[in-house]
Amino acid sequence: MRLGHARAHIKKPDRKDVLVVAFDEGSTVAGVFTKNQFCAAPVLVCREHLKKHASVRALVVNTGCANAGTGAQGLADARATCEAAAKLIGCAPREVLPFSTGVILEHLPMDRLLAGLPACMAGLTADGWGDAAEAIMTTDTLPKAASRQIDIHGHTVTITGIAKGAGMIEPNMATMLGFIATDAVVGEDVLADMVKEAADLSFNAITVDGDTSTNDSFVLIATAQAGNPPINGEGTAEYAKLQEAVNAVAIDLAQAIVRDGEGATKFITVKVEGGQTREECMRIGKSIANSPLVKTAFFASDPNLGRILAAIGKARVKDLDTSKIRVYLDAVLVAEHGGRAESYREELGAAVMKQPEITIRVVLNRGIESGTVWTCDFSYDYVKINADYRS
Amino acid sequence: MRLGHARAHIKKPDRKDVLVVAFDEGSTVAGVFTKNQFCAAPVLVCREHLKKHASVRALVVNTGCANAGTGAQGLADARATCEAAAKLIGCAPREVLPFSTGVILEHLPMDRLLAGLPACMAGLTADGWGDAAEAIMTTDTLPKAASRQIDIHGHTVTITGIAKGAGMIEPNMATMLGFIATDAVVGEDVLADMVKEAADLSFNAITVDGDTSTNDSFVLIATAQAGNPPINGEGTAEYAKLQEAVNAVAIDLAQAIVRDGEGATKFITVKVEGGQTREECMRIGKSIANSPLVKTAFFASDPNLGRILAAIGKARVKDLDTSKIRVYLDAVLVAEHGGRAESYREELGAAVMKQPEITIRVVLNRGIESGTVWTCDFSYDYVKINADYRS
Repeated sequence: MRLGHARAHIKKPDRKDVLVVAFDEGSTVAGVFTKNQFCAAPVLVCREHLKKHASVRALVVNTGCANAGTGAQGLADARATCEAAAKLIGCAPREVLPFSTGVILEHLPMDRLLAGLPACMAGLTADGWGDAAEAIMTTDTLPKAASRQIDIHGHTVTITGIAKGAGMIEPNMATMLGFIATDAVVGEDVLADMVKEAADLSFNAITVDGDTSTNDSFVLIATAQAGNPPINGEGTAEYAKLQEAVNAVAIDLAQAIVRDGEGATKFITVKVEGGQTREECMRIGKSIANSPLVKTAFFASDPNLGRILAAIGKARVKDLDTSKIRVYLDAVLVAEHGGRAESYREELGAAVMKQPEITIRVVLNRGIESGTVWTCDFSYDYVKINADYRS
Repeated sequence: MRLGHARAHIKKPDRKDVLVVAFDEGSTVAGVFTKNQFCAAPVLVCREHLKKHASVRALVVNTGCANAGTGAQGLADARATCEAAAKLIGCAPREVLPFSTGVILEHLPMDRLLAGLPACMAGLTADGWGDAAEAIMTTDTLPKAASRQIDIHGHTVTITGIAKGAGMIEPNMATMLGFIATDAVVGEDVLADMVKEAADLSFNAITVDGDTSTNDSFVLIATAQAGNPPINGEGTAEYAKLQEAVNAVAIDLAQAIVRDGEGATKFITVKVEGGQTREECMRIGKSIANSPLVKTAFFASDPNLGRILAAIGKARVKDLDTSKIRVYLDAVLVAEHGGRAESYREELGAAVMKQPEITIRVVLNRGIESGTVWTCDFSYDYVKINADYRS
């Protein structure tokens, strides 16, 4: 697996803005994509190319233009990108997956994009992950990469990923691109199951502003170079080991996105426990994590904790008994019996709120399921970044 | 009907913060309330007191403290408020409705609140609407009042209302209090139906930040003093006339809330037409109106209109054919065939975006239903107001 980038002047002069990731023959891929119905042309093309246990030879990623809201021309542009890359690589166009991120409703500058591909190919190198992470950034302030190694029957298996995204991270991923590759040898269907579980525990569990993009994509590639005996379906120890490592890389990347959330000054973990289903825990967790009032209170280090209760109450979980709910801020019990805990003192809450990393823990006391959501606070800079984005 | 206020120092010294609205015997009331499950104690008490065609003699409203997240003590405080007012008026406690707005998770200062009631009673006057509108404000910068007169069989019927609210206005009302009174003589059940329709077309059609409060309440009172022949169920011309006037007052108040939205600099109307159901039109309208990315783009007067498409796409309306959708900014066609309209020029969009009042019109081309949502932009000041609210 090798990576190469180019400075193709897609939107801004002289920045890394096109990335090619090339894979050896025998590589397979699975992915999950935005549920936004106005999804971008490259997402439509990815979905076409991604059949079961699909063969993949290259990813082509551009930043600066999302190729979304671009109609038939956008679709033709995404296909032409695949064809041009396939020609350079010597593979079928369906073995190339296109990804775009940036401004919506503008057409790709195809001449510049295609002119950049030979430079990407010429620069392909196995240790290009750092440059690759930079080449896919938009309003990100930091590149995002993570890696793990595990041992499968004496063979070292590596799992490495990069991601971009700093806003529009919910629900189910938004202006979020994530690419994780492993050299593991895996059987059919394994990747499709693994990418779904990893997405649910990572990119689908983060939120910056509750918006959902047209372009979100997360793909998992297996290059089959590690020499391990093939890993097959769920239930085996090897499967569990690989899934766990893929999850860990995905969670690292997802948390890096939240830490780099537009204007973020605090990293907030929302743990909801004691639910009847994971789904209801995640619903309450996201209701808290997406509340602008909760997020501005955290920015201000103001323990205005009633806003958390209001966010729980508006999640519309059926038959919720609010008198049974306990809310903690780190280890501080804030609310119980439908109101402020007797032991709670404002100074205790204020001390927790001042920290850069805070955990809100909600115990529903109605079941054994749980869910965790990661988010950030909501600052002046969020507005500034999004008001100024195109200028 | 008479109104009186007091400066009871609930939260801040020397501001109007308690309001009593007193009604003659024979007055009836109906209301709609927040769906937040952590709803405030006064909301629980209102629901108890509001039976079908309920008799009402007084509303007691305080600002400065929401009496929400206050458990059993909060409930006792709300009941004690009704009892104290009932004693002063000479009615049953269930004929008094309590309302609170302000900070959550703090107990009402009952001594100060109760001490304020005699001043409210002493100052009761028929022309106290202006002071009343001021006495219920929190982060509102302007008092909100509206009135209409209609003729019913030669009798002049007046409909007058006040409201407060500037944030947390969605879905289904939030830190929003609305009170509309009419002197019309109406039959049983009429008020319950009317208040629901008026709420759907007004307070439930506005959004400032997508948050939902614990205290939202909207009540409609009929004092039966106008001398008109009783207005009964739907279908009569008089019913339609009164409903239309109540709707108009409610929409005036709701729009005033949006215009005074926390940090708002622009008033945005989102009209969604050509839908299969009103519900799907409202869902898309609210998805646009609640998108922080759309709202910050409007604040910046930046025609980054792809964000509108993204907001339509994430509303998850089933079987939506994005290629059939047309999007207009005032009269400017922005998008069609899944992308930017050929006739669209950035200057045209930019010119519309600079205006203080803007209409986003989305034509779905799949049915005959429509829905309208009103919202405002999202500015630095929204963050400032909500980060500093308690200090």
